Amino acid sequence: MANQSLTEIITKMLTNNKFSALKEMLSEMNVVDIAQAMEEMESENQVRIFRLLPKDSSAEVFSYLDSDIQEYIVDTITGAELQFLMDDMFLDDAVDFLEEVPANVVTRVLAHTNPETRNLINKFLKYPENSAGSIMTIEMAAFPESYTVSRAITEIRKTALDKETIYTCYCTDSQRKLVGSVALRRLIVSPEDTVIKDIMYDDEQLIYVNTLDDQETVADIARKYDLLSVPVVDNEKRLVGIITIDDIVDVIEEENTEDFEKMALLLPSEDEYLKTGVFTLTKNRIVWLIILMLAATFTGQIIEGYEDKLSAFAGLTACIPMIMGTGGNSGNQTSTLIIRGLSLGTIRINDYFKVLWKELRVAIICGIILAIANFGRMFILREITGNDISNSVFIVVCLAMLFAVIIAKTLGCTLPILAKLLHLDPALMAGPLITTLVDTITLLVYFAIANAILTI
Amino acid sequence: MANQSLTEIITKMLTNNKFSALKEMLSEMNVVDIAQAMEEMESENQVRIFRLLPKDSSAEVFSYLDSDIQEYIVDTITGAELQFLMDDMFLDDAVDFLEEVPANVVTRVLAHTNPETRNLINKFLKYPENSAGSIMTIEMAAFPESYTVSRAITEIRKTALDKETIYTCYCTDSQRKLVGSVALRRLIVSPEDTVIKDIMYDDEQLIYVNTLDDQETVADIARKYDLLSVPVVDNEKRLVGIITIDDIVDVIEEENTEDFEKMALLLPSEDEYLKTGVFTLTKNRIVWLIILMLAATFTGQIIEGYEDKLSAFAGLTACIPMIMGTGGNSGNQTSTLIIRGLSLGTIRINDYFKVLWKELRVAIICGIILAIANFGRMFILREITGNDISNSVFIVVCLAMLFAVIIAKTLGCTLPILAKLLHLDPALMAGPLITTLVDTITLLVYFAIANAILTI
Repeated sequence: MANQSLTEIITKMLTNNKFSALKEMLSEMNVVDIAQAMEEMESENQVRIFRLLPKDSSAEVFSYLDSDIQEYIVDTITGAELQFLMDDMFLDDAVDFLEEVPANVVTRVLAHTNPETRNLINKFLKYPENSAGSIMTIEMAAFPESYTVSRAITEIRKTALDKETIYTCYCTDSQRKLVGSVALRRLIVSPEDTVIKDIMYDDEQLIYVNTLDDQETVADIARKYDLLSVPVVDNEKRLVGIITIDDIVDVIEEENTEDFEKMALLLPSEDEYLKTGVFTLTKNRIVWLIILMLAATFTGQIIEGYEDKLSAFAGLTACIPMIMGTGGNSGNQTSTLIIRGLSLGTIRINDYFKVLWKELRVAIICGIILAIANFGRMFILREITGNDISNSVFIVVCLAMLFAVIIAKTLGCTLPILAKLLHLDPALMAGPLITTLVDTITLLVYFAIANAILTI
Repeated sequence: MANQSLTEIITKMLTNNKFSALKEMLSEMNVVDIAQAMEEMESENQVRIFRLLPKDSSAEVFSYLDSDIQEYIVDTITGAELQFLMDDMFLDDAVDFLEEVPANVVTRVLAHTNPETRNLINKFLKYPENSAGSIMTIEMAAFPESYTVSRAITEIRKTALDKETIYTCYCTDSQRKLVGSVALRRLIVSPEDTVIKDIMYDDEQLIYVNTLDDQETVADIARKYDLLSVPVVDNEKRLVGIITIDDIVDVIEEENTEDFEKMALLLPSEDEYLKTGVFTLTKNRIVWLIILMLAATFTGQIIEGYEDKLSAFAGLTACIPMIMGTGGNSGNQTSTLIIRGLSLGTIRINDYFKVLWKELRVAIICGIILAIANFGRMFILREITGNDISNSVFIVVCLAMLFAVIIAKTLGCTLPILAKLLHLDPALMAGPLITTLVDTITLLVYFAIANAILTI
C-alpha cells in the first residue's frame, strides 16, 4: 500500500514539474523502493525518473528493474547516458540484463561499452545458463598472498566502493591461482606488517566452485558453510570471480520455485506469473495434462472390465473415488517429504532401505486407522440411509484401503530415490504422477480383493 | 562419500590413540565438516573429538551439531568445560540449542553460565517461536552516531572477533534508539575525523524489524533489499539485536519446507525426516488423510445416486477417474503457481481479477485441447476394442472434461487468494484439498450433462 501511494506522489511531482524537490527525495530513498515505484509508472515517467536519479545510484536502481523496463530505458536514453550507465553497473548485473533483452538491444548496448568490459561481457554471456560462471561477478577484493596487511588495506581503501563485497578477500599465488581467503574482520584486527599468507585460511579449508558448476551446487555450498561469498575458479584453479550471498539467496528461491513447479508437473517458467502470457502458461501445463489423461485410460479400462461385478454389489462403485483419493493423498505426502529431503541433502540414495522401512510402518499404521475410520463411516451411512451394502463389501473396501496406503507410500518413497539414482529430477516423481500410478495399481488390487471375497 | 571416509579416518586415529596428530588435523578442518563427521560417529567418540577441538573453534563446531548430540555432550562434559563452552558460544546459537533440549539440561547449562548471559538467555527464551527476537543475536557492531570514524574503527578493532558480523554497523542516539547504519566499507574509506552521523544512512532509508515480527517478514525484507543483516528494535525503537544473513538463509529454507509440507497436507515437522519417529510421521499425516477420506463420501454418494444411469450407458463409469484426475491435476497446477506467487510477493490479493481472467483463458484453451485429445482417445479405443460407446457419451465426456478444467482452475486460483484475504495460510489450498473439492463438483457437472444429453 505504502509503495502505491509513493508512486502516486512521485507521479504528481513529475506532472507539476517539481524536479529539484523530487531529486532530493529520490536521493533519500532506498534503491529497491525506487525501482519498485518505477515499475508501477507509465513508461515515459520511468525514463524521466531514471534521469533524475543521483548519478551514483542510477546504475543500481537500473539493475533492480524488470527487463522490459530496462529495455525501454536503454532504447530511450542517449548514447552518452548509456555509456555512463554501463560503466557504472556491476558486471554480473549487466550480464543479467543483457541475457534478457533482444539481440538488437544487446548490440546497441555493447557499442556503448568500453572494449575491455565488452570483451568480459561477451565471455560471460558464453557461460552455460545457470552455471556458476553465468552468475559470478569479477568485482572482488583479491591480492597476492605475499602482501602485508597494511598494503592489502590500502588496496581495499582505494577500490572498496567499486567492489560487490570486500568482506571476504581472496588470495592468489604468483600464477593467479586461488590459494586462500581472509576475512576483512581479520585484516583490520591484525598488525599492519603481518604477511597475508600467515593469517589467511589456506587451501585445505578453502571452499570454491568451478565456472561450470551448477548454481544449485553453489547455493548448497554457501548454505552449508554459511559463506558471504563463494570464489569461482577456472580449470587451472585461477581465480576468475566470486558469487555473493544476495545472488545466492536469489538462486535458492529460484531453485525452490522450480521444484514447486516440477512437483505440480508444470514446465518451469522463465518469468513471474503475472508477466507470463496465456499461451506460455497453457504450453507449460498442457503436456503433462495430456500424458496423465491418457494414462488414466488404463484405470478406465480396468473399471470397464469389472462393470458387471460393480453393478452386482451395492457400494463397490461408490467407494472407488475414496480409495483412489486416499491412495493418491498418501503417496503425495510421502513423495513430498522424500523429494524435499533429497533436495536439501538430508536424505541420500543410500538411505533408501531406512526410508522404506520407516514408510512401510507408517503406511501400516495409517492404513489400519483409515480402514477402521472407513468401516465406521460405512456403518453409520448404512444406518442413516438404510442402504443394503453387505458386510463383505465393507471388508473388501477396508482391505483395499489398507493396501492402497501401503502401495502409495512405497511408491512415494521409491520413485523419487530411483529418479535420483538414474540422474533424473526427483521433483517429477511428486503427487500427480504418483497419484496416476497409484490409481491404476490400487484399482487392480481392489478388484482382485473383490473377486476373492465376493462371488456373483 | 568424502565425508564418510573422513569419519572412518578420524575414528581409526581415535582407536589408535593418535591424539596429537588428530588435534593437528582438526585444527586444519572446516568447522562444518567437523560437525558433519562427528554426527556419523558413536556417542563416546563424539565427546572425545569434541575435547580434542582447538579451544577457539569448539563452540562453533558445537553450534553446528544436532540437538541430540549437543545434549549428549553437555551431559558428559565437566562443569568447567560447560562454562567455557557457554562463554564462547554466540548468544543466538546458545538460545537455539537450549530451545531444543529438555528442561533438566537447560537448568544444568544455565547453572554454568555467568549471571549476565543467563539473564539474556532467559529473556531470549521468552520471545515467541519464529519471532525476530527468537532468532536475533546481540553480538553486533553498534555505536553512537556522534562517534568519529577513527573512534568507531578503534572500537571495532577491539571487539571485532566477538561479533557475528561487523560489516554493517548500527548507529544509536543518546537514548540508544536506532537512528542509522553504516557499512564497514564506507567507514574504512572515509577520512578519520568524519562524524558517523554525516556518513550514515539515516532513518528514512533504514530498514529494521521489531522483536515480535515473524521470521518470514525478516526473510522477505532481507531478500528484497539484499541485506547482510537486519537490525531488530523493541517497541521504543531501541536497538536490541541483529539477524545475520546465514540465519536468514536458514529461515528461507525452513519456510519453503513448511510450504512444501503444508501443500501436501502434512502437519509441519520439527525435525529432519530421518530423525523423525514413525509415530510422529503418522500423526503428521493421518489427520488430513481422514478428513479427505470422509470428504470423499460425497463423491461416493453422488455416484451411487446415478448408478442406474451409469450402468445404462457403456463408458460413463470408465471415464470417471479420467475426468476427476484431469480436474485435480489442472487445479493443482494453478494453485501451486498462485501459492508460490503469494509467498514470494509477486502476486497480491489485489491481483485476483487479473489472475482469474488469465486462468479462465488458460482453462478454456487447455480444456478444449484436452476435450479434443479425449475424443480422439475414445474414438481410437472404440476402433480397437470394438466397444459400443455411443457418440452422445463421447460428447458428454468431452464437455465434462472442458468444464472440469474450468472449475479446477477457477478454484485453484480463487481459494489460495481467498485464504490470504482471510489471513489463513494459502499453502493449505493446494493440490489435495482442491482435488477433493474439484472431484465432487466435477462429478455433479458430469452427471448433470449426462442427464441433459442422454435419456434412458
